[in-house]
Amino acid sequence: MNGAQALIRTLVDAGVDVCFSNPGTSEMHFVAALDDVPDMRAVLTLFEGVATGAADGYARMAGRPAATLLHLGPGLGNGLANLHNARRGRTPLVNVVGDHARSHKRLDAPLESDIDAIAGTVSGWVRRSLSPADVAGDAAEAVAMAKKTGIATLILPADVSWEEGAEPALPLDVRPRPHAAPSLIEGIAKVVTSGEETVILLGGDVMASPEGQLAAARVAAGTGVRLVAETFPARTARGAGLPDLHRLPYPPEMAMAALKGTKHLVLAGATAPVHFFAYPGMPGHPVPEDCTVHVLSLPGENGVAALEALAELAAPGAEPKVMERETPELPTGKLNPRAMAAVVGALLPENAIVVDEALTSGAGLTEMTSAGPRHDWLSLTGGAIGDGLPMALGAAVACPDRPVIGIQADGSAMYTISALWSYAREQANITTIICDNGSYAILEHELTRVGAASDGERARKLLDLTGPALDFVSLAQGMGVPASRANTAEELAEQVRHALAEPGPHVVVATLR
Amino acid sequence: MNGAQALIRTLVDAGVDVCFSNPGTSEMHFVAALDDVPDMRAVLTLFEGVATGAADGYARMAGRPAATLLHLGPGLGNGLANLHNARRGRTPLVNVVGDHARSHKRLDAPLESDIDAIAGTVSGWVRRSLSPADVAGDAAEAVAMAKKTGIATLILPADVSWEEGAEPALPLDVRPRPHAAPSLIEGIAKVVTSGEETVILLGGDVMASPEGQLAAARVAAGTGVRLVAETFPARTARGAGLPDLHRLPYPPEMAMAALKGTKHLVLAGATAPVHFFAYPGMPGHPVPEDCTVHVLSLPGENGVAALEALAELAAPGAEPKVMERETPELPTGKLNPRAMAAVVGALLPENAIVVDEALTSGAGLTEMTSAGPRHDWLSLTGGAIGDGLPMALGAAVACPDRPVIGIQADGSAMYTISALWSYAREQANITTIICDNGSYAILEHELTRVGAASDGERARKLLDLTGPALDFVSLAQGMGVPASRANTAEELAEQVRHALAEPGPHVVVATLR
Repeated sequence: MNGAQALIRTLVDAGVDVCFSNPGTSEMHFVAALDDVPDMRAVLTLFEGVATGAADGYARMAGRPAATLLHLGPGLGNGLANLHNARRGRTPLVNVVGDHARSHKRLDAPLESDIDAIAGTVSGWVRRSLSPADVAGDAAEAVAMAKKTGIATLILPADVSWEEGAEPALPLDVRPRPHAAPSLIEGIAKVVTSGEETVILLGGDVMASPEGQLAAARVAAGTGVRLVAETFPARTARGAGLPDLHRLPYPPEMAMAALKGTKHLVLAGATAPVHFFAYPGMPGHPVPEDCTVHVLSLPGENGVAALEALAELAAPGAEPKVMERETPELPTGKLNPRAMAAVVGALLPENAIVVDEALTSGAGLTEMTSAGPRHDWLSLTGGAIGDGLPMALGAAVACPDRPVIGIQADGSAMYTISALWSYAREQANITTIICDNGSYAILEHELTRVGAASDGERARKLLDLTGPALDFVSLAQGMGVPASRANTAEELAEQVRHALAEPGPHVVVATLR
Repeated sequence: MNGAQALIRTLVDAGVDVCFSNPGTSEMHFVAALDDVPDMRAVLTLFEGVATGAADGYARMAGRPAATLLHLGPGLGNGLANLHNARRGRTPLVNVVGDHARSHKRLDAPLESDIDAIAGTVSGWVRRSLSPADVAGDAAEAVAMAKKTGIATLILPADVSWEEGAEPALPLDVRPRPHAAPSLIEGIAKVVTSGEETVILLGGDVMASPEGQLAAARVAAGTGVRLVAETFPARTARGAGLPDLHRLPYPPEMAMAALKGTKHLVLAGATAPVHFFAYPGMPGHPVPEDCTVHVLSLPGENGVAALEALAELAAPGAEPKVMERETPELPTGKLNPRAMAAVVGALLPENAIVVDEALTSGAGLTEMTSAGPRHDWLSLTGGAIGDGLPMALGAAVACPDRPVIGIQADGSAMYTISALWSYAREQANITTIICDNGSYAILEHELTRVGAASDGERARKLLDLTGPALDFVSLAQGMGVPASRANTAEELAEQVRHALAEPGPHVVVATLR
């Protein structure tokens, strides 16, 4: 078989059977080989940032990597922003980046580019396959390294793809995530039972896991320590029956207030918090100067097991405090972010996946949904906007039987708007609520926050999206997705209810202007 | 003044007074400073690939660089594909990439990324400004280096932007492009008068210049050598009164046929040609084995002066053969690529700028327009698709009094579709013809050409854009651009005529399915 066939076979055998693709000429043998390995599902995207963001959302929900298929340096470049988000969320992901044939590299053809350098900025592992005999082994290692380090990028020369002489390779073993040593647990147990002001910062695998959250809640109930969630967890299990966890706020002043007086900060699946941006005259992180930071588990380690061991030692027999089921009333009248949040909370179906890129329009959203039916929540981890629409696609491909709800800021939506076409093509069960406030509202806040506030018309104009206004109904319909606009809370409720009831994708534009 | 103010003032003083922008938090002081330096025109784009492609189109037409304003590594990544095209076209361009404040870099905040490494893959010059006192000098050098090397990237930490203590810097001198030495001209004169089969390959500054083309045509008329244009010149002067230059074809077999029997290949503003991609069993370039390649001028040198000197020496008194004005008849009936090309040729206004990303739908387009009124033609130089819509924006900003016509393939349009919103916002005089063939047609050719042809349904499906069909009328209207669809040649002519007559942007969708 040729290199492409062996590559795809090996990926499938290692459990990677979805490939979010935007191929070009150098990937044509990979495309042709899809007919030889029908177990690989190729999902076509019209832009590479949709492919990489979808692979991120897929892996967050499936718990195993998807592949992407990208076209040389420019294709990888187009996918880079959402690879950045995946890296920050520690999402396992295998990029297959086509390159010129080996003989063609030295000719400096027009599409020649430094793929290796670009890939290196987001990947934990990069390899260039040197021959058809190598490619399957490289692919097996890519999958293993993705599970270990997050993003693995395999650069695939066109002739390595098309030449014969390749054979599939077996999957490689991946060691389970390391457990915390008993002595470490004992040390942390002393901290949480010290009586001093202590916060456990939960992130990563702990936030994704009901068991992890419940173990943390047992520690809190038995010792009196406070639980705080990291600001942007990749995946959060939520709903009634789980503890009421609040996230460390995004604005620096609020984050500092949340940790004020804390003497011990215990990290469980999280890293020590820093502010998203620096601001004039403001410290770079919210941890008080006299606070000691302790590591129970870092991202990539087994935080759930560590918290369970800690609960057993420090809070034996404690009962976790969890939320009773409570959903908001359906609101009426004028639509604003809070009313939108109430609609989402009131209509949230069982077992939904919420993809949150609402940004400034998300006020009240987590609060209105926290005690609802059990669901999973995916956040923008790396701050590179334009992740929401693609992530929802990946989540829907990973979990075709679960409803996916995307809450999407308008400005951010435009970075990867062609994701909607892939929604229609895959007939994905995604309800997208576009928060139409007609501006880069988050930047208006930031303009003020950095002290750059001016009444300058030219500065303000650069954050305004209303000249002309974006008509997301028209945009969605142009890509084959049924769409409607809601101007009142009642209209939003009716349209969201309809969208959730009918299979396939829907866009509902919430007028928040 | 603060760093941002000094930076913008310095850019403007050095002739860089347009900035295609997609800012984030770290760029807020730059945004605020726009009100202090009103000579800088900021053009907002909704996606960084639009900003970089527009800066490319701007500089190709204005002959001087524009700036871009991008947000950290992810923003630069989003702009990378069109920076690749700009690099391949040797377009001067100044990227300003905001970064975290200096004190924040070591904290590994969520948006922390290796900007320097990403920038290095497309830039001839990269610098990180280390203090407000440095930033203006760095900016002056960035402009000078852009003129010399193509892309200059200035990384601007947020606090360097916001701190006081900066002063504007004076523009740096830029040496004129080097002239060819007389001995070199004499050597080439011997080649072109040798009587052996000789081709002069024209590119870069020669193709952009009527004088350069006419000098080449004098050499051809006086010596009998053949003239061939490079495959994708960044900018070509075209129309009646200029020589009828044919481009080296893109398909390898045709390129080899075009140079068959050539004993001497003289490069004038071009590099030695290589095939775009490698194909199984095919050489990597079209130059015959027994052909000697001679350099009259390389890109970045003064090819026009070299050709004029060569004409004086090798073909004194020769009259160039030029085209008489000839425009095609308006076609009738069914719409296909050739009929579309005839409509463009028949309606092409004086002094237009044509931005060509028609790809497979462009058959006949250059032929039908070559002897029309004088115009300039911008091509996709680096093969990273999605350059057409942004380039047209930049060209329109550079030349507000000239009509811009974009001929745009459908698949490629989707990479940077939000450019249309900026068209509407700027009320740019751009008529965009979308070639709606419902597929990645170029990849269907390539699938066959690489020998990967299969009747495989899954492979074919990955190149098909009709499930669902993209409705570009709806997409354009959703971004505030008037749009219509033409199903016959008559409809296309009527709609294009209307679009050209009415100020502001228009989209005309040509049904080629």
